[in-house]
Amino acid sequence: MRPSNRTPDQMRPVRITRHYTKHAEGSVLIEFGDTKVICTASVENSVPRFLKGKGQGWITAEYGMLPRSTGSRMDREATRGKQGGRTLEIQRLIGRSLRAAIDLRLLGEYTITLDCDVIQADGGTRTASITGACVALVDALRSLQRSKAIKTDPLKQMVAAVSVGIYEGQPVLDLDYPEDSRAETDMNVVMTATGGLIEVQGTAEGEAFSREQMNAMLALAEKGIGELFELQRQALAE
Amino acid sequence: MRPSNRTPDQMRPVRITRHYTKHAEGSVLIEFGDTKVICTASVENSVPRFLKGKGQGWITAEYGMLPRSTGSRMDREATRGKQGGRTLEIQRLIGRSLRAAIDLRLLGEYTITLDCDVIQADGGTRTASITGACVALVDALRSLQRSKAIKTDPLKQMVAAVSVGIYEGQPVLDLDYPEDSRAETDMNVVMTATGGLIEVQGTAEGEAFSREQMNAMLALAEKGIGELFELQRQALAE
Amino acid sequence: MRPSNRTPDQMRPVRITRHYTKHAEGSVLIEFGDTKVICTASVENSVPRFLKGKGQGWITAEYGMLPRSTGSRMDREATRGKQGGRTLEIQRLIGRSLRAAIDLRLLGEYTITLDCDVIQADGGTRTASITGACVALVDALRSLQRSKAIKTDPLKQMVAAVSVGIYEGQPVLDLDYPEDSRAETDMNVVMTATGGLIEVQGTAEGEAFSREQMNAMLALAEKGIGELFELQRQALAE
Amino acid sequence: MRPSNRTPDQMRPVRITRHYTKHAEGSVLIEFGDTKVICTASVENSVPRFLKGKGQGWITAEYGMLPRSTGSRMDREATRGKQGGRTLEIQRLIGRSLRAAIDLRLLGEYTITLDCDVIQADGGTRTASITGACVALVDALRSLQRSKAIKTDPLKQMVAAVSVGIYEGQPVLDLDYPEDSRAETDMNVVMTATGGLIEVQGTAEGEAFSREQMNAMLALAEKGIGELFELQRQALAE
Amino acid sequence: MRPSNRTPDQMRPVRITRHYTKHAEGSVLIEFGDTKVICTASVENSVPRFLKGKGQGWITAEYGMLPRSTGSRMDREATRGKQGGRTLEIQRLIGRSLRAAIDLRLLGEYTITLDCDVIQADGGTRTASITGACVALVDALRSLQRSKAIKTDPLKQMVAAVSVGIYEGQPVLDLDYPEDSRAETDMNVVMTATGGLIEVQGTAEGEAFSREQMNAMLALAEKGIGELFELQRQALAE
Amino acid sequence: MRPSNRTPDQMRPVRITRHYTKHAEGSVLIEFGDTKVICTASVENSVPRFLKGKGQGWITAEYGMLPRSTGSRMDREATRGKQGGRTLEIQRLIGRSLRAAIDLRLLGEYTITLDCDVIQADGGTRTASITGACVALVDALRSLQRSKAIKTDPLKQMVAAVSVGIYEGQPVLDLDYPEDSRAETDMNVVMTATGGLIEVQGTAEGEAFSREQMNAMLALAEKGIGELFELQRQALAE
Repeated sequence: MRPSNRTPDQMRPVRITRHYTKHAEGSVLIEFGDTKVICTASVENSVPRFLKGKGQGWITAEYGMLPRSTGSRMDREATRGKQGGRTLEIQRLIGRSLRAAIDLRLLGEYTITLDCDVIQADGGTRTASITGACVALVDALRSLQRSKAIKTDPLKQMVAAVSVGIYEGQPVLDLDYPEDSRAETDMNVVMTATGGLIEVQGTAEGEAFSREQMNAMLALAEKGIGELFELQRQALAE
Repeated sequence: MRPSNRTPDQMRPVRITRHYTKHAEGSVLIEFGDTKVICTASVENSVPRFLKGKGQGWITAEYGMLPRSTGSRMDREATRGKQGGRTLEIQRLIGRSLRAAIDLRLLGEYTITLDCDVIQADGGTRTASITGACVALVDALRSLQRSKAIKTDPLKQMVAAVSVGIYEGQPVLDLDYPEDSRAETDMNVVMTATGGLIEVQGTAEGEAFSREQMNAMLALAEKGIGELFELQRQALAE
Repeated sequence: MRPSNRTPDQMRPVRITRHYTKHAEGSVLIEFGDTKVICTASVENSVPRFLKGKGQGWITAEYGMLPRSTGSRMDREATRGKQGGRTLEIQRLIGRSLRAAIDLRLLGEYTITLDCDVIQADGGTRTASITGACVALVDALRSLQRSKAIKTDPLKQMVAAVSVGIYEGQPVLDLDYPEDSRAETDMNVVMTATGGLIEVQGTAEGEAFSREQMNAMLALAEKGIGELFELQRQALAE
Repeated sequence: MRPSNRTPDQMRPVRITRHYTKHAEGSVLIEFGDTKVICTASVENSVPRFLKGKGQGWITAEYGMLPRSTGSRMDREATRGKQGGRTLEIQRLIGRSLRAAIDLRLLGEYTITLDCDVIQADGGTRTASITGACVALVDALRSLQRSKAIKTDPLKQMVAAVSVGIYEGQPVLDLDYPEDSRAETDMNVVMTATGGLIEVQGTAEGEAFSREQMNAMLALAEKGIGELFELQRQALAE
Repeated sequence: MRPSNRTPDQMRPVRITRHYTKHAEGSVLIEFGDTKVICTASVENSVPRFLKGKGQGWITAEYGMLPRSTGSRMDREATRGKQGGRTLEIQRLIGRSLRAAIDLRLLGEYTITLDCDVIQADGGTRTASITGACVALVDALRSLQRSKAIKTDPLKQMVAAVSVGIYEGQPVLDLDYPEDSRAETDMNVVMTATGGLIEVQGTAEGEAFSREQMNAMLALAEKGIGELFELQRQALAE
Repeated sequence: MRPSNRTPDQMRPVRITRHYTKHAEGSVLIEFGDTKVICTASVENSVPRFLKGKGQGWITAEYGMLPRSTGSRMDREATRGKQGGRTLEIQRLIGRSLRAAIDLRLLGEYTITLDCDVIQADGGTRTASITGACVALVDALRSLQRSKAIKTDPLKQMVAAVSVGIYEGQPVLDLDYPEDSRAETDMNVVMTATGGLIEVQGTAEGEAFSREQMNAMLALAEKGIGELFELQRQALAE
């Protein structure tokens, strides 16, 4: 039995709120149960040095947690003077995942920065970030199209992500913190709406996992991500 | 005429939402019009080194802005590797102001950290932070009393803050960003509920201000802060 | 009775020594009693990036204390790897204050950096810095005029500063360290020679202060700053 | 056809040289073709703060590349003042993987630090690091046992790693740099000698990959890692 | 002919002013011509971690230059966030040299920090620093003896330093900046009052130097340092 | 008697292996007994800002030690966030020494970076670095000539270095770690193949040294460096 009484293949309630803050070209509050992340997409009319003059754009991501988004207060990374390894790892993952959603040549020489800031954490912040950031990204692309800055929609396919794991020997979908902190295996899966895998990151926390368990987890992830694509679609249709 | 059509002595609508996030001992969303700040109070059962063994507590504050809380995206301080001068100045101000609200000896050897994180900025983020952090602080003190960690309420008096300024020659209350960015003078005032001044920080941006203008601004601040004390009282009564 | 036996409205002896070191375009040793600060003004033939091509100049300031300028040795900020919050706050204040003295458009595309380095500290280092830096700045402007780099004097008005406070319930002028460390309220006031206020920064250290006390402190500050303007005038006449 | 003329399931020649440097408790040079990594294991008689008094040990890892281990010179991380995101990601992976090899309670209050320094890079540095570090770790454990510092061997199982990928549509084993830089998908797999998965990190570089491709890659990884376990066994038998 | 019209073996006028600032246990202004350095000695009742409980003391040094001590303004090291290589090299040299003056066991568990801050630079700042710091150190030792903190004088021998060099083919003593910036060879020599060498650091700037030139420079250094010992003696006799 | 049973004027066995790694334009493993340093020379087609447009090249050096190149593990400088004073001092020395080998005008607008990374340390790492880096530099110059990037060989003269010292009262050549850690005096000498001195850095560790001892050490250094020039010559002739 899961601590939250969910069935093994049951996601937490997911909510996607667009236009959450007023300044950003895309601004989304995404909630996976008690996990809440503000995802903003900011457009800048330039590209990093290594892309100058190549006629293509860039997508990058940054990730942060408010110091008391967690059960006990964490040091503020701005105070400690650097982002930790976990933060860098997550923001690299978000950036790679979202670049897979876009044809960078159609974007033109624009950079879109996706800021994913965790307001409240309860497991699955990186997968919620990817799923929410993709909606914010679409809003930013629409704003570029409305202003005629770009003519063709650079979106190739939506991208979404979910965590799966082995909890008390059982493959489960969308782990919350009580599960995540005790899971034997934790896996994050990023997929495209057309069914392809973008990222698979599985880690044995306590003991090794088998090929069979891996396949069971991937099946759960496919199911959950399918639901997320539907929620993204509904949110963007409003 | 003010850009927002307010009268010179009119505050923006102010909203105080308690229990905004679930982990912190005190958690408040405060809104001064479009300015939105999450203020959390985190209790830690220890004190900084310089207070060890002195039988008293400590109140400290940290301040941050989400990168796209503003009209154009700012660099993330965690990425730049340090907090800027403005950030340090503001968090020192918040900490000093809130320490004035508390009898640190009655707090016992606890540290309460007030994190003020700006979700959306439209002028007055530091005064909203002080006003909201005081409510979060009271919630944290109540939680310490409920758990019998402390016996006597360390709160001496509520503290609130507002900005005033000279805008097109006219003293005005509670400047929003369009006013703030063009004001001749900008002043932040922190007061106690018993009518005393805690901090007065007035800066001539364009030209010097007179003693008369200073007095007019202080009168406006007193009026606005009076309204804020009433809103804090109502929020804490719920 | 003040520890120094001064009357409440009595400044410490103030000395301004021009041409204190030989390399800088302006170099002043200013002494407020035992507080000694070297203020140099350095001219650079360029402006910061955000002003490039706007046809105006810039004034900026940096502040430092020798490690043993104080009663017990402080860590060197260069060793700790960053400037502390107090240092940043003070150098921002000095820069803002001195920019109020100058018409930046008449300065042309020059940057003048004011370095205020405390050799010996006994209270009031920031107000001594502002007062001395203004004299160094005038010397730098004269050097630019002598070399025909600029034609019109960009100086709008002299600027000076003094601290006031409430010490044992009594408003006093120009606090030295024994007073400053025990004052109930500490206020720094920056004014122009034409009587306008540039900055007012009042902080209740122990208990709140009243509007009446604030007015009494401002009156003392006006008196003290008047004396400083006379001393600046005499120094620059030599 | 692979650039190196290898068959799809063919590893590069792998060499493991023990006792490569003289100071470390374990010191191994591992070569995967032209990729050369020095892996040292250093024993320290203490544990990190978060483990003090818990009667268990700790395994941690650090990773670095000599500035000219690569085709064009990279900046030295010590000069840039911080480790990059890729470095942090890799050393976190190495540490997690090696902790899976050990029963930390049997290690006692010792910390073993695995330093993996790349002398020459040609793809697969992180998988070579894990494979070589496991041999160095065993040498360090043997040294602890020889000196009677610990009585029971804390080694649970050997650990090894290899990269696999999709190159020109074809699943291939052990990518060298010419393949890695053009692969559609890149996956790193860490396994135990008993056949369990420790880490699976698959990334689509250009286009998404399918579940079938994932399975084909995992099968190749199992084959390659099997060969690595045999080479580790031979090296440790000498 | 030297730019300053000095003979090859002639030092610049040297002045040593004790008790230059009031807070430090030892405080000296030393002038080698236009080079001016404030040297303070600060006593702290503890030792660095690596010496705890060994019953001996420690001498360490820090060096800094005011930003406009030089002909063109240098960046402040506190602003750049780290001390440069030249600064670290010099303060390591000062510390080593002064430790040679002291029997650290007789000092007891005290640390004396020598801060050498260059107010005005005209060549030879490191040798002036060593020579002045030794006088400040003696004042700090006397203060420890007066307060009965230590019973036996830990001073073994005075230490002084001077620069020599090859300028236009000619060995010269005590180079000022115009010479130093064009010298073929630059050598700093630190000696004890009993005639021993503590440090010799010779660097060919343009072309290599011979053993004969080295001997000629050492002879000049001995002469100059002899004069410095006499000036130290006179200053300490006052 | 020396711990290694060498005679006072006997060097350790020295080996120079060219083409040690495959990517760099010059790559040398140099061994002074158990001290092993990888020296690479990397060519970049640009110069630092201060040399832009002056028609000359630049030689610079960086130095590092693998964390477990020493008897007990040192913190990694990339992890600590900065290079230590000793590292900066050594890499400045290597850079200065190698610049003395080259006519920078004949090099053209190229920068050659010499990376000296210590794989195993047993005393004399800086002198081994200089001696090995000079060979790597020659290989890089040859590669520039082969590719017709430069026409004239910029090498003026080979450079090599050795340490000498006073160990138990006796001048000795090429100190290993057991001697170095207990030597009374330690001196590093850099010379040109034509017999000139480039750098002499002598430091009294315990007690001062005399002019006679200095001359004896310089004579030993001349002998040892003569042998090193012969070994460099042989290596480059292969």
